[in-house]
Amino acid sequence: MNQADFGVIGLAVMGRNLALNIESRGFHVAVYNRSRERTDDLVNKHADKNFVPNYTIQSFVQSIKAPRRILMMVKAGRGTDAVIDELLPHLEKGDMLIDGGNTFFEDTIRRSEKLAKSGINFIGMGVSGGELGALQGPSLMPGGQRAAYDLVEPVLKQIAAKAPEDGKPTVTYVGPNGAGHYVKMVHNGIEYGDMQLISESYDILKRVLKLSSNDLADTLADWNKGELNSYLIEITANILTRKDDLGSDKPIVDVILDRAGNKGTGKWSSQSALEVGAPQSLITESVYARYISAMKEDRVAASKVLAGPDFTFAGDTDTTKEDLRKALYFGKIMSYAQGFDQLRMASNVYKWDLPFGELAQLWRAGAIIRAQFLQRITDAFTKNASLHNLLLDPYFKSIAENYQNATRRVIALAVSAGVPTPSLSAAIAYYDSYRSAVLPANLVQAQRDYFGAHTYERTDKPVGEMYHYSWYDEA
Amino acid sequence: MNQADFGVIGLAVMGRNLALNIESRGFHVAVYNRSRERTDDLVNKHADKNFVPNYTIQSFVQSIKAPRRILMMVKAGRGTDAVIDELLPHLEKGDMLIDGGNTFFEDTIRRSEKLAKSGINFIGMGVSGGELGALQGPSLMPGGQRAAYDLVEPVLKQIAAKAPEDGKPTVTYVGPNGAGHYVKMVHNGIEYGDMQLISESYDILKRVLKLSSNDLADTLADWNKGELNSYLIEITANILTRKDDLGSDKPIVDVILDRAGNKGTGKWSSQSALEVGAPQSLITESVYARYISAMKEDRVAASKVLAGPDFTFAGDTDTTKEDLRKALYFGKIMSYAQGFDQLRMASNVYKWDLPFGELAQLWRAGAIIRAQFLQRITDAFTKNASLHNLLLDPYFKSIAENYQNATRRVIALAVSAGVPTPSLSAAIAYYDSYRSAVLPANLVQAQRDYFGAHTYERTDKPVGEMYHYSWYDEA
Repeated sequence: MNQADFGVIGLAVMGRNLALNIESRGFHVAVYNRSRERTDDLVNKHADKNFVPNYTIQSFVQSIKAPRRILMMVKAGRGTDAVIDELLPHLEKGDMLIDGGNTFFEDTIRRSEKLAKSGINFIGMGVSGGELGALQGPSLMPGGQRAAYDLVEPVLKQIAAKAPEDGKPTVTYVGPNGAGHYVKMVHNGIEYGDMQLISESYDILKRVLKLSSNDLADTLADWNKGELNSYLIEITANILTRKDDLGSDKPIVDVILDRAGNKGTGKWSSQSALEVGAPQSLITESVYARYISAMKEDRVAASKVLAGPDFTFAGDTDTTKEDLRKALYFGKIMSYAQGFDQLRMASNVYKWDLPFGELAQLWRAGAIIRAQFLQRITDAFTKNASLHNLLLDPYFKSIAENYQNATRRVIALAVSAGVPTPSLSAAIAYYDSYRSAVLPANLVQAQRDYFGAHTYERTDKPVGEMYHYSWYDEA
Repeated sequence: MNQADFGVIGLAVMGRNLALNIESRGFHVAVYNRSRERTDDLVNKHADKNFVPNYTIQSFVQSIKAPRRILMMVKAGRGTDAVIDELLPHLEKGDMLIDGGNTFFEDTIRRSEKLAKSGINFIGMGVSGGELGALQGPSLMPGGQRAAYDLVEPVLKQIAAKAPEDGKPTVTYVGPNGAGHYVKMVHNGIEYGDMQLISESYDILKRVLKLSSNDLADTLADWNKGELNSYLIEITANILTRKDDLGSDKPIVDVILDRAGNKGTGKWSSQSALEVGAPQSLITESVYARYISAMKEDRVAASKVLAGPDFTFAGDTDTTKEDLRKALYFGKIMSYAQGFDQLRMASNVYKWDLPFGELAQLWRAGAIIRAQFLQRITDAFTKNASLHNLLLDPYFKSIAENYQNATRRVIALAVSAGVPTPSLSAAIAYYDSYRSAVLPANLVQAQRDYFGAHTYERTDKPVGEMYHYSWYDEA
């Protein structure tokens, strides 16, 4: 009894791999799963490891040293509440639950408040890196009570990935209650944006430049050697080299159906951006791109009915490829600028005091969006902790300015060719809006005042002073 | 006692004007407001009218004939719940509450369920048309129990606007519980989109074509004579002719600050589109455009730091103006196609069986988005009640196809000039995505399967059959 250092509840692939990861660092790990088969499978296959199998919640809790550290890896949603309710009667004050699922941050805030009443600490922890990351070293984004984090930090630092730049573990204290799950949610939104930008580039390479499969793979591999270097570009290059495994002799991408699924975290990220007032258009366009991809039957029917433009590519392939590479990096920078702006605004709304520069550090290894350029974001916030927007940092400013014309050419080309670039277009619209001292929103305000007497501010009066025009008097 | 035909609770400008409208159709109207001043002001200024003033909730309810028809025009949110709680003890089975506020549809669903337990009917009714519409004839979007609607329909038909095409009142039964407020929410989203599209066009006329104030007003007035004919284009033309009323001698638009406000209905509309899986990108971009407009200080600072493109307009002004007119109509069609697609998907999710063609009819008069072209939408659904997307209707297909090249030229021009067109760009991306039999989402699925084992479907196998590739085996 009471011999385990750590507990893991929920032994599907992520929970199992995290349990293996924790055990491998020298900890005794109590494990429990609702159906005993998974527990048995884990301990039987790893009979030489220090696992403590349990088949009731009560014995599971009792087998862990107090104050207990228990990681829940169960399906997000009501399942999480059910497991908490089962655990609660057996826990003692000062014990700590860690929810490592892809939980909606508002649920984490709610659960944190509820558990605090029983004296139980609660950490909502984002985990990125997929199955392999869980086993070998994920990126971890824990939020909750600071003191609780301190108790679990030694374990988390050991199981997290280590950044290639400086060997630092990719974990840090993100902030109170739902902060960790929020940061993970925006991480996933950024992941959606990265994937969509890569897909749009691939689509132009394929449909406009008509690259062969080999050339597509080579182009992505080339891109991965430069400033675009990242896990997602790397696996894309790899994907493009792979043949169908059911024997068709085609590249595997050419037999994969173009209907993209989603698990909802991108959607949450956009819904929250709308809620906190953050103009996060690029990620949102990438969520919508998945939705429209899912309407496969409609699209096939529409493709036979709706004509596109007449278009023949008359440019230079290598020049356009280089434009595209720059456009992709430009788009990525806009997406991260929007994502960090969302984090800044959410941090204010929820009073989290998020450590922006450290967040970029967390994502340098383990995370799906790990990329060379994340160090640039850390550097930017290190130089200026109160940086309001990434675009105002000299490095990002210089890339944006120097790559904008390539981006403009790519979008004009794609729009002329009839190839959709929702996210690249959102990137340039964001750049041009953000650097516009004057936008046509004056007209919107005039319209709103006209039909709804919503009032407006004036350029020659203090902000916040509202005026109304007597539109109907002399019309 | 019991002499009033109808009750109105909440006498701010919308409630007051609706009460006047109802009374003007020959009804005795009981009125109540939390602070008695508004009640007194209404009845004193209209001593010759058939108002029944009340100063307690109890006497207000008692002064109305059973089954009672009571319109609530109170601030949406908790205020609505508070008023319902005050009313409830005084109501009898079969009485009917109508919430005419800008209420979030989920609140209406919740209240409808709660009131049904007490035998009280509840109608959530969208009201569009602003102050003047409320007084002279709004567009009404009521949702709730069918039998309750039938009881109130004679009144609603009298107070609603009448369509210029056929004199029909702009009210119909929209569907159960939250259907009416949902339709109003999407109406408002479409309104955001319309306003943003007009603003982007205005911005290009001003910043690229450098039209004078007079030419701007004339251009909009010209546009209003053709297929763009609508209330919003009409008031924009009017706005552009008006001078500053504080004596600066400038056009009023030039002294109005470019920070657009919002009341949240556009935001809800986009959040719900994300929820039901509808790719409603144009409205969402218009919401984000308001958000970025609100960041005035940041934009002014960024405008001094971030360079734009070198650009000189070398085209023909009249040709570009005509392109812009077509692009605006093209954008509008994409926005309505997306809006009606959202309604279709929400109708399935919430089981509302929305009458799509009739919804367009409701908006032909009274509503802020009233426009000549709404009749085209009604016609499309009359011809084909199960039309899946407006773009598949012959009229809209033909406009989209014929105006796409003008739209492509406008976007290429604006992107080259550095003038943001988030909503126009979303329009062309939607068109090109929707008519693409194959989108690059195959790559997204490959990536998801690679890093997360999320599986994928195949082009040569039935939809729904999921496959996984052994990416790590031979990499």
